[in-house]
Amino acid sequence: MSTESEIINRLRILFPRIGDDAEEFNITPGFTPIVSIDSFVQGVHFDLSLISPHDVGYRSCAATLSDIAAMGGNPCSLLCALGMPEGSMTLAESLARGIRSLADDFDTAIIGGDTVKSSTLFVSLCVIGEGKKIVRRKGARVGDVLCVTAPLGGSAAGLKALKNGLNTFKEAKEKYIHPKPRIGEGLILSEYATSMIDVSDGLVIDLHHVLEESGVGAVIHNLPIERDARELAMSTGERPDEFALYGGEDFELLFTLSRENLEELRKKMNFLEIGEIVKEGLRFNDGREIRLDGYDHFKKDTLSHG
Amino acid sequence: MSTESEIINRLRILFPRIGDDAEEFNITPGFTPIVSIDSFVQGVHFDLSLISPHDVGYRSCAATLSDIAAMGGNPCSLLCALGMPEGSMTLAESLARGIRSLADDFDTAIIGGDTVKSSTLFVSLCVIGEGKKIVRRKGARVGDVLCVTAPLGGSAAGLKALKNGLNTFKEAKEKYIHPKPRIGEGLILSEYATSMIDVSDGLVIDLHHVLEESGVGAVIHNLPIERDARELAMSTGERPDEFALYGGEDFELLFTLSRENLEELRKKMNFLEIGEIVKEGLRFNDGREIRLDGYDHFKKDTLSHG
Repeated sequence: MSTESEIINRLRILFPRIGDDAEEFNITPGFTPIVSIDSFVQGVHFDLSLISPHDVGYRSCAATLSDIAAMGGNPCSLLCALGMPEGSMTLAESLARGIRSLADDFDTAIIGGDTVKSSTLFVSLCVIGEGKKIVRRKGARVGDVLCVTAPLGGSAAGLKALKNGLNTFKEAKEKYIHPKPRIGEGLILSEYATSMIDVSDGLVIDLHHVLEESGVGAVIHNLPIERDARELAMSTGERPDEFALYGGEDFELLFTLSRENLEELRKKMNFLEIGEIVKEGLRFNDGREIRLDGYDHFKKDTLSHG
Repeated sequence: MSTESEIINRLRILFPRIGDDAEEFNITPGFTPIVSIDSFVQGVHFDLSLISPHDVGYRSCAATLSDIAAMGGNPCSLLCALGMPEGSMTLAESLARGIRSLADDFDTAIIGGDTVKSSTLFVSLCVIGEGKKIVRRKGARVGDVLCVTAPLGGSAAGLKALKNGLNTFKEAKEKYIHPKPRIGEGLILSEYATSMIDVSDGLVIDLHHVLEESGVGAVIHNLPIERDARELAMSTGERPDEFALYGGEDFELLFTLSRENLEELRKKMNFLEIGEIVKEGLRFNDGREIRLDGYDHFKKDTLSHG
């Protein structure tokens, strides 16, 4: 095992020189500071037999920054805690490069971190952001339109394609490996959305959070399914809509807004109208109820997620 | 394994209800925001055969808040990421209570967190603080007085007493199990100290950081050794000064200040003058050089730290 100073020196090319016990950061005057922490554990959140350490870093960072996007904020500063097994320096360096790569794309400075020995590889990422107008899960009103930034299910399909060693479904695999946090869209939406969340656990679960926090229900009249997800499901005899309903990790934004703002928002960004906020319940417009526990079934039978 | 929502519900008594993807926090206008992240891993940073999960949480939180004290800041908000093996819910709850207990003592709000499955138990703590005047490692000047907030070596002696199953040395064990971050002292020192760090890795290593950052050296003329550390060392035939030089985890503040401020500071808080900043090197006032690598020897032969 390298000593801690050797590790810090090797990671210094990626992370800033840590010269103090804590790091200063800036918040723009008039903006609201927000913060989120996420952890990713080998064998639970990622499988290094399927994707590279660089990609693990990249998508862990994307998932973390997505939490800031979901509030309509801009990510400013990132702190990274790496737990590394002995002898995994090269792996850690690659993982750190992946984190850095995504962070750079969104002008998020890595301002601090901590490297510790651990028999299980893990990374905890803490992101500090700021927003002019913070959007919460709470805030959806009856009559609001329910929308999503892009078709869903691609990430789950990509993971399945990787697990099954399929050469096709490149777009879905790319969606799984290199998701993009919807920072720009979130900033636009901060002016319009009455509620917002990112699709990390799957549409049904994440929508359920919004409905519960807002004390409302929803009817879905259009379920946009990512193309590869549809094709993969059809080729295996699975139900395409389950990928979009329960797949998760697409990191698209799910949001509600007043119908009167719909046209103005369409001029500024792409999104898909999928339903409407109603008093209670969660169902399709043909009356079929959408079950929350479909998630466990889908994960268990289709993806065998950790 | 409990489902994630069950876990969140059980930890909700300790942590706040997480109702959004990220959490808002406040920074007092005119203050500088600072942040630090620390991780603690079972078998590396703590040993549950020696101390309780509650104590692991307590001292992990103390170590994290100590980073803010070392900058002369006040800790305001804490985020906690827990990695838990299956079936360790009761243990995690106890660990969380320990975190909460220390955080409450210093009015630090736990504003967010993340719970994940992990074969290795770990906790990553991210603390956000603020300071009116931030003190860095860099800033010690030739002629400055070198001081520490209390005698050193107690924590290392306490750990050794625990490892050897000794019934005595209660104060040292308490120092190891329930360290206190020197928040109040750090705030006072923010007005006087020219440089500061907390003693986490041991006096020699931490002092070395200050000297390196400041481009100076130091002469030590008084090495205050915690009473139990002295007695334990004498009973085992070890050198008491090694506990104070290399022991670590005392979380006392090591700082420098101009000699002209010494008397004024004495009126406000207790501390011990241990040496003086000189141009270069690190030695005792009798000329003996203090070696940086004594640390490895001490850890290896005396404590068998992870």
